[in-house]
Amino acid sequence: MKAIVVRPPNVGAEVKDVDLHEPVLPGRVRIRTLYTGICGTDRGIVGGKITFARPPDNSGELILGHEGLGVVEEVGEGVTHLKKGDLVVPVVRRGCGVCLNCRIGRQDFCETGNFVEAGIRGLNGFMREEFVDSASYLVKVPRAIADIAVLTEPLSNVVKAVGQVIHIQKRMLWTCGDSSYECRNAFVVGTGPIGTFFSLMFATYGFNVYMLNRRDPSPAESVIAETIDATFYNTSKGYAELPKADVVVDTSGYPSAFIPLLGKMNKNSILVLFGTSSNDSAKVDAELVTSIVENNIAVVGSVNASKEDFAEAVNYLTMWKERYGGLLNKMITSVISPEQATEALMKKPSGEIKTVIKWS
Amino acid sequence: MKAIVVRPPNVGAEVKDVDLHEPVLPGRVRIRTLYTGICGTDRGIVGGKITFARPPDNSGELILGHEGLGVVEEVGEGVTHLKKGDLVVPVVRRGCGVCLNCRIGRQDFCETGNFVEAGIRGLNGFMREEFVDSASYLVKVPRAIADIAVLTEPLSNVVKAVGQVIHIQKRMLWTCGDSSYECRNAFVVGTGPIGTFFSLMFATYGFNVYMLNRRDPSPAESVIAETIDATFYNTSKGYAELPKADVVVDTSGYPSAFIPLLGKMNKNSILVLFGTSSNDSAKVDAELVTSIVENNIAVVGSVNASKEDFAEAVNYLTMWKERYGGLLNKMITSVISPEQATEALMKKPSGEIKTVIKWS
Amino acid sequence: MKAIVVRPPNVGAEVKDVDLHEPVLPGRVRIRTLYTGICGTDRGIVGGKITFARPPDNSGELILGHEGLGVVEEVGEGVTHLKKGDLVVPVVRRGCGVCLNCRIGRQDFCETGNFVEAGIRGLNGFMREEFVDSASYLVKVPRAIADIAVLTEPLSNVVKAVGQVIHIQKRMLWTCGDSSYECRNAFVVGTGPIGTFFSLMFATYGFNVYMLNRRDPSPAESVIAETIDATFYNTSKGYAELPKADVVVDTSGYPSAFIPLLGKMNKNSILVLFGTSSNDSAKVDAELVTSIVENNIAVVGSVNASKEDFAEAVNYLTMWKERYGGLLNKMITSVISPEQATEALMKKPSGEIKTVIKWS
Amino acid sequence: MKAIVVRPPNVGAEVKDVDLHEPVLPGRVRIRTLYTGICGTDRGIVGGKITFARPPDNSGELILGHEGLGVVEEVGEGVTHLKKGDLVVPVVRRGCGVCLNCRIGRQDFCETGNFVEAGIRGLNGFMREEFVDSASYLVKVPRAIADIAVLTEPLSNVVKAVGQVIHIQKRMLWTCGDSSYECRNAFVVGTGPIGTFFSLMFATYGFNVYMLNRRDPSPAESVIAETIDATFYNTSKGYAELPKADVVVDTSGYPSAFIPLLGKMNKNSILVLFGTSSNDSAKVDAELVTSIVENNIAVVGSVNASKEDFAEAVNYLTMWKERYGGLLNKMITSVISPEQATEALMKKPSGEIKTVIKWS
Repeated sequence: MKAIVVRPPNVGAEVKDVDLHEPVLPGRVRIRTLYTGICGTDRGIVGGKITFARPPDNSGELILGHEGLGVVEEVGEGVTHLKKGDLVVPVVRRGCGVCLNCRIGRQDFCETGNFVEAGIRGLNGFMREEFVDSASYLVKVPRAIADIAVLTEPLSNVVKAVGQVIHIQKRMLWTCGDSSYECRNAFVVGTGPIGTFFSLMFATYGFNVYMLNRRDPSPAESVIAETIDATFYNTSKGYAELPKADVVVDTSGYPSAFIPLLGKMNKNSILVLFGTSSNDSAKVDAELVTSIVENNIAVVGSVNASKEDFAEAVNYLTMWKERYGGLLNKMITSVISPEQATEALMKKPSGEIKTVIKWS
Repeated sequence: MKAIVVRPPNVGAEVKDVDLHEPVLPGRVRIRTLYTGICGTDRGIVGGKITFARPPDNSGELILGHEGLGVVEEVGEGVTHLKKGDLVVPVVRRGCGVCLNCRIGRQDFCETGNFVEAGIRGLNGFMREEFVDSASYLVKVPRAIADIAVLTEPLSNVVKAVGQVIHIQKRMLWTCGDSSYECRNAFVVGTGPIGTFFSLMFATYGFNVYMLNRRDPSPAESVIAETIDATFYNTSKGYAELPKADVVVDTSGYPSAFIPLLGKMNKNSILVLFGTSSNDSAKVDAELVTSIVENNIAVVGSVNASKEDFAEAVNYLTMWKERYGGLLNKMITSVISPEQATEALMKKPSGEIKTVIKWS
Repeated sequence: MKAIVVRPPNVGAEVKDVDLHEPVLPGRVRIRTLYTGICGTDRGIVGGKITFARPPDNSGELILGHEGLGVVEEVGEGVTHLKKGDLVVPVVRRGCGVCLNCRIGRQDFCETGNFVEAGIRGLNGFMREEFVDSASYLVKVPRAIADIAVLTEPLSNVVKAVGQVIHIQKRMLWTCGDSSYECRNAFVVGTGPIGTFFSLMFATYGFNVYMLNRRDPSPAESVIAETIDATFYNTSKGYAELPKADVVVDTSGYPSAFIPLLGKMNKNSILVLFGTSSNDSAKVDAELVTSIVENNIAVVGSVNASKEDFAEAVNYLTMWKERYGGLLNKMITSVISPEQATEALMKKPSGEIKTVIKWS
Repeated sequence: MKAIVVRPPNVGAEVKDVDLHEPVLPGRVRIRTLYTGICGTDRGIVGGKITFARPPDNSGELILGHEGLGVVEEVGEGVTHLKKGDLVVPVVRRGCGVCLNCRIGRQDFCETGNFVEAGIRGLNGFMREEFVDSASYLVKVPRAIADIAVLTEPLSNVVKAVGQVIHIQKRMLWTCGDSSYECRNAFVVGTGPIGTFFSLMFATYGFNVYMLNRRDPSPAESVIAETIDATFYNTSKGYAELPKADVVVDTSGYPSAFIPLLGKMNKNSILVLFGTSSNDSAKVDAELVTSIVENNIAVVGSVNASKEDFAEAVNYLTMWKERYGGLLNKMITSVISPEQATEALMKKPSGEIKTVIKWS
């Protein structure tokens, strides 16, 4: 079958024919791939910049792709929750089997680091015509969202991060006088797919959402902001017109982008670190530390997602499709063939929110 | 304007013209009623059987109706989250203003008992052409679910109850090895609107759902069970073919209906008491108590819902509409006029799941 | 060495010499027994009434005793947290190794039922001069409480149960306006060792404690009640003079003892079932069920304790010794030899709160 | 009566006679002061460096002192939980009366900032022979710890901060395979009274504790480390010999002291910011941010304490006194008269851990 293959840390990706001879053993499922999304991590691997990218043991090459959507073709013995024809999204990270978090299905909190991640490290990904996977790593998707369910994986990571916020903030009373979050302001730094998902999530929770970027919004961003009653804010004009924030999400990874915002954080507020980058820094002074202490401020880094986060992401996509119509479809800015993908993996197309590869 | 009025404890309801002269003060909103649902409590009031039903202070009569849906006609000064044309569902219970739970918007846990409930005790309800209410008690509804949002109120109570279960069960590790609930069985006793909502909720959470009644399913019930992959189980044939339950929900209120089921409860399981009734009893013996102790079993009674539960109910209705198409519409078995309602309030129409009054 | 041995379901216990040849393998520890307590379960086994009592596999007899205190004599390779001379209390239940709760050290919530319990089912207990155990099942005890640390095991079960209450009640706001529990009333049904521990725990948490029994207090009970500012209440005179309860603990296991108390339960209250018995029953009627629903009342059965509960029990004993002086010592009403124990195991001595066997 | 008075932002403190004519109104209590502790905040006020220090409204001077211990002399009408002769510690911060956290007794999370703090801002403190206070702000103390209970207030803030850690870390499975914390390492930066309390707390929870300072331990610090099985580590020799940390507590407030330690933080670890300072800074680069993200690391600032934290601090002091004998007394390095205090408030005596003023 056709697959997109990389040889990290070499630069470049190749469409080639691979033959993996994967039988459908008990508990496992054969899936025909429908779509795979392309994200920054894929481009980092193809660009030779992701140091932890690696093929499966005993293989020289890695099949790329961790944002997948497929249809069940065949189920192995003992598989009870899935049947032929079901749409499924596969979980990315597979646990180490040793640490307690992995043993309870929370490999997103793996402590040994000995996990593998499909399409990233140690396990072949989903940029191929079909794959066989364990039923326990597959999340069922309603047919109604077949067109947008390829967004499940990136959204799952946002679902996990927002879940961290809600849990952490239960250390005090953080809901408003009517038990809602309508008195709370959320700032989201960055308006790419991840930033958009954070904005959608916090809007759904009832927060007043501010979408922050260093420029004016694109037409698509304006539509999104208007649809969810959010405010798009151009930070190149400074922060003076912003209110105080109860939650700040950084999706950029640049300390210079979010540390200046800490001066806008309210008492009892929380900063979510989600983005990763390099070659940037900012100064933290004692006055900022004092402010974090005196105001009971929390910071949380969040990575990856559990199977339950995937399932919840599917629920959000389903709800948003009913509520916002084609809004989510607008996030998929181009659908390309596997052959076209090798170029799109090298260089982000202008105007991209999410580029998706169609497999069948 | 037209309204449906009762004089508890007198039997009967009357459609009459009332004039309440309600100005739209700051923070308040005028709402034109679209639909109101009829439930067992309404029939209990009309039948003179609900002892706590009472008109507002200084009034001899009570406008009935606590399951409402309307459209905003006019907003008072200072109302920021709502505008003319928005669809809204009003919260039923309004807090005592004194106890801590009421002060934080959790009047569903009021400790003084000095709350009022629209259409039930001390506050006029929503069976009238329009009403004025505080913005803080109104939950916004997406236009996409205008046809089913009248179901929000009954669902909100189920959302709260399921939230209680999830919280209480976090005292141990209750998720499965893949972080889902797919290894857990939920029994729901009763297949009316409330039972159906419990079944939908637990199915959405990933439980294996068993819908229990003393008879075979109606055609509508068969469709629901099939759609959500649930098993309809006729308990008149005994319980032998049922597996062990991890959660049992009673929506009947009859001890004789759920106490025999306690023998089917798994270690670490929970029983939810939701239904209320009278003139029934069952024997609890020491062996059952021992089993509750030895197996760490919990029981929780749950009543009413907070504003956040209403908002979450709206989210579920929206998601289910996208996922299940017209399934929820099938729960609305008849739509009647206010004039037809006086009869429907006296006697439950045969085949009813939910009867709804259309106001405009 | 000397040990107290039973052959369930045979009646009777025997002091005899056993030789178990237990080497101190890596991770394991040899302990010289100081004291073992006698409780109702021991008497149930000796009386042939505990149906689940059984010897280790491949053995015809069981060494009795699950309330132990000993001193470390020798530590195996790799044991880092214990050294010769340390006082230790062993945990009773050892997990099935399969279910998730057992894998994370919460065997008190074992789901398979395939656990073993020292001195009760499938594992030899601590009524012997010495034993070898895994370091991971031993809880270190400060020398300062050597005289009362034999009470750790019974207290650990109470610690777990109270922890369940605190967790479950976080479903609403249950603390008072000053963040304390001083506005809450706790009723404890039964004034034996377990009831006394519940009363001490709730008093420490700040609750107003009512110690309930069907008779007037003994002199020792009066001292305890006075020391912890609790009210001893004789229920033979009815319940009229009791206030409403926010928590009711039953340590009796008799439905006829606690079900009548449910009429005294406050809104948002919780009933803890801890005691087990047989040959008793009470009627539950629909009105009681309605009251549980309308008032958001919870019930929780609780059994056994985790290692952390043991460690917390040690902390409580230490604090109470400093705070209440010899109060806890008064709970140990007699200290006997192993030879005297065979009789004390058959028949509870009059005036006993806790009888303890001294081994060295 | 005699009192120690300041006029912020003026430098210096004065012992003088004040007459406040405070009647014991209903719900209030007259307390004779036994001891007050001196801490860095007191010296900051006396040194004119604490910008938020201010007298009560309508007064030009402020009575200093927020670490108090006294004995009840007289109780007002309606006071039920306290009586003449009881030892009490007063809570420092009094809520704004408006925000939800203050209304539920969690003024340590006040959102308006309109709280007052005894001896610091807007409310007279406890460095005087007697004071009258509301019973709801007084925490009862066992007579057994009269000699060390003046340490309750500083410990209460540590209790709150550790509570934050335990809550936040429940976002994943953070206990070890035996349900303990014995597999977790805690680093405490700073070995003053606050650092010592953090070390004692984490040792009590079962963590492996590392006490960090830039020098070798003093004799007193060596005794403390040995008593609680902690490791004193001199960071002037670099961090190479330290293991990975699961929790890092900074009590210094210097970014340059704790930011280099972040490289030693384990997956799923947490950094507690407790200290405040000025005139220091450190660089945060993108690689550090990436590490926080990839490893699910949290940071939490913590300030102040609720009444429940005070009550728990009393429990810890009581337990530690029984367990560690005079260890806590060693923390009180000198007991001085009010007249001697004016000098001790200007300049920290050499070798001080905690200096205490004796009032009667």
